[in-house]
Amino acid sequence: MAVTADMSVSLDLVASGEDQSLEHPFGSRIGQAQAIHAWMFDHPEENAAEIAAITAAGAFIMGRNMFDPGRGDWDLDWRGWWGEDPPYHAPVFVLCSRPREPLVMSGGTTFHFVTDGIEAALERARDAAGDRDVSVAGGPGTLNAFLRAGLLDELRLHIAPLTYGEGLRVFDGVPDLRLVPVSSRTTPHVTHVTWRRAG
Amino acid sequence: MAVTADMSVSLDLVASGEDQSLEHPFGSRIGQAQAIHAWMFDHPEENAAEIAAITAAGAFIMGRNMFDPGRGDWDLDWRGWWGEDPPYHAPVFVLCSRPREPLVMSGGTTFHFVTDGIEAALERARDAAGDRDVSVAGGPGTLNAFLRAGLLDELRLHIAPLTYGEGLRVFDGVPDLRLVPVSSRTTPHVTHVTWRRAG
Repeated sequence: MAVTADMSVSLDLVASGEDQSLEHPFGSRIGQAQAIHAWMFDHPEENAAEIAAITAAGAFIMGRNMFDPGRGDWDLDWRGWWGEDPPYHAPVFVLCSRPREPLVMSGGTTFHFVTDGIEAALERARDAAGDRDVSVAGGPGTLNAFLRAGLLDELRLHIAPLTYGEGLRVFDGVPDLRLVPVSSRTTPHVTHVTWRRAG
Repeated sequence: MAVTADMSVSLDLVASGEDQSLEHPFGSRIGQAQAIHAWMFDHPEENAAEIAAITAAGAFIMGRNMFDPGRGDWDLDWRGWWGEDPPYHAPVFVLCSRPREPLVMSGGTTFHFVTDGIEAALERARDAAGDRDVSVAGGPGTLNAFLRAGLLDELRLHIAPLTYGEGLRVFDGVPDLRLVPVSSRTTPHVTHVTWRRAG
């Protein structure tokens, strides 16, 4: 059982914009393009193995902004971006500062709201995942927190061939990281690169 | 005949430090580690194809800081970092603001000092390269200038599995770039990724 993370990034490692909102969940500039996610949504057949690996996890962890960007208090009518049957089909632990009751969706996804930090969320996700992996689903701030804490076993970046020039980047505030290259694969619209924890 | 560029970078796309000097040509922090170049110097057998591709060019272009970092006027005794027989074995066009006579080295390398900008340097390098490629040898500022100007046909990054957290990065100041993924290869100490110009 490993702790993995998948993140779609631009060439300049931007994974989302800074001004996230309900209207523009990836930020106004990036939300208009969403080109870093095109490999998955527009070309699933070219990247079937990588998409299957993402959804194979037994539990997921995500940041509050990924579930519900740019808002303070909970809107209890908000049930996430993914409709009534989210693609996770597993427990999803949402890092947040305000408690909320678990939100049971169709297809096996339940959103749990965790207010006591990434290590507590990881412990709960490990318990839920059993023998399967725990996946850090994003966004970049959450991924960087896991990298800083040394809690990630495997990092998979999906590098779209474009730059934004601004936004929230993977590895921001993560100096002195050491990883080990594992694999890479280029498909017509993206470069998939995997590293694992060193030592 | 293509215009190519090879650049060794960290995971966070740092290619050199900010405080370059003769004592620390990659900057004081990165100069101490030089870990982004270890794949080439410590593991040449694992990466022979990529090293051969770098040196196959018929002419090279480099920034002043790569030839002679952190100095204003020319010290005419300075003949580069590479000894009397530099690894280029071809004409090298050095972008600079002060004229200097060409510097003929052993083994086919001649340093030419170009004061009228990257397009003029590219024209001279193309003439010198004949049927062979022109390689933009670095540093990151020079590479970014070529990317901004749309003058690069093929970009090859060699991604070392570590972060620095500060320094001069590839793609800094290069928004709205669009490339096409070409290939990738992981060896035990580095990930080689190639893109080409879009369209």
